[in-house]
Amino acid sequence: MIRRIGYVQTEPVFGRVRDNVDRAIAMASSVDADLLVFPELFNTGYLFESRREVEDLAEPADGRTFRSLSAFASETSTAVVAGFAERGEGGKIYNSAMMIDETGDLRWVYRKTHLFDREKIWFDPGDTGFSVVELAGIRVGVMICFDWIFPESARVLALGGAQVLAHPANLVLPYAQTAMLTRSVENRVFTVTANRVGSDERPFGSISFTGRSQVTSPGMEVLVMGPRDRPHASAVEVDPSEADDKSITERNDLFSDRRVEFYGALVG
Amino acid sequence: MIRRIGYVQTEPVFGRVRDNVDRAIAMASSVDADLLVFPELFNTGYLFESRREVEDLAEPADGRTFRSLSAFASETSTAVVAGFAERGEGGKIYNSAMMIDETGDLRWVYRKTHLFDREKIWFDPGDTGFSVVELAGIRVGVMICFDWIFPESARVLALGGAQVLAHPANLVLPYAQTAMLTRSVENRVFTVTANRVGSDERPFGSISFTGRSQVTSPGMEVLVMGPRDRPHASAVEVDPSEADDKSITERNDLFSDRRVEFYGALVG
Repeated sequence: MIRRIGYVQTEPVFGRVRDNVDRAIAMASSVDADLLVFPELFNTGYLFESRREVEDLAEPADGRTFRSLSAFASETSTAVVAGFAERGEGGKIYNSAMMIDETGDLRWVYRKTHLFDREKIWFDPGDTGFSVVELAGIRVGVMICFDWIFPESARVLALGGAQVLAHPANLVLPYAQTAMLTRSVENRVFTVTANRVGSDERPFGSISFTGRSQVTSPGMEVLVMGPRDRPHASAVEVDPSEADDKSITERNDLFSDRRVEFYGALVG
Repeated sequence: MIRRIGYVQTEPVFGRVRDNVDRAIAMASSVDADLLVFPELFNTGYLFESRREVEDLAEPADGRTFRSLSAFASETSTAVVAGFAERGEGGKIYNSAMMIDETGDLRWVYRKTHLFDREKIWFDPGDTGFSVVELAGIRVGVMICFDWIFPESARVLALGGAQVLAHPANLVLPYAQTAMLTRSVENRVFTVTANRVGSDERPFGSISFTGRSQVTSPGMEVLVMGPRDRPHASAVEVDPSEADDKSITERNDLFSDRRVEFYGALVG
């Protein structure tokens, strides 16, 4: 079963939520895909001044950004995974990703487990853990940006049956693309990293993002990669069922070869 | 505290144990180092015809190969980690690595946890798990070849305090060098992969090895890399204590940021 999976590498303008969503959807509309991943916080931008500013820009999971993406999803039969600032219950604010299926239904919201740097000021730590959801006939697991550096994130998702790791990101360093190749080969899964480009220029500081969104394969190939410095959207054909085969030799299956009796320190 | 760590990338001739050991030690003697890693099965070669053949070539951990390496270690004050076929108790045979300190003492023997392909015919699965041993003032963890593809191997060692991952290997595929960079950055450790070159040409088949031994840093740099196709020995200066600092931003420590409450599937 062939599926087209890809990314929308955007250049949001800080705080211009409606414009950012409209432009991202316009880019997405140019791509023939079954599953598209949008960057982390693609609607708001990244460099907040304070938690209060995040609170002002955050939306509930079924808010306006969801409704726009849902309409796009159902009109084009494209499942979407997209990062946003989520207003949760009881004043909580999360760095989240919504999973919208190809009919436009909201299927799950992942809340980022491992917060990076000042995100610890802006957001509450995610309370969902990692789950796998079927979108467009693909078993998809979500991890957000800095989750990449913890091998546990991808591993838990792959052990949970994920065929594709959807990875919304706002990367500032050059390491993640290489590491996601490792995530692909060690777990025998596809990965889609959707990074942003451009800068958030604020009165109190600025930060630049590094693009190079990519799709990787269980065979440790980069199937497509975006440029460093400008918006780009692309999708590639893959057979997600390749990720169900964890064998790499006649005698080795990467999952049944695991020897959990020696892994206790991981949760100790 | 600066230490010189490196590899001896050899080209063994199958079954010529004494020659292989002598030539490897001659190469090692040309390098000024505190810790040197030799390849997996560096004394025997790799492509066995049968378990019986391994049994014939295997040695106890304190056998002749150990004695030669121990003499080298004490004469040069160089700690050694070296892969060999180990004759264990009760007829067991392991794909092992000996850890010899800079005084020539045998400190520990690691038995490979994750066996690759026909190794499952030749060897018993390792029963030691992963431990960290101090050699030459460095906390060293050992993993052998195919252990690299299981992120749990390096993770358990790093959580156990390893500053340097010693990685004897007989690599035939090109993935491990990239993955070991990921192991370095995700665990903030140094790694030393000692691979071999050349081929084992046997009447029933042959196999070629890919060299490119390397030392990597917690900052995801390749500090030195050997050639693909010829023997090479090299060591570089590092400060092992860099690996004790798991912080990567003012607010992020890669170990205290782990959220084990969401990692249960790893040992489930």
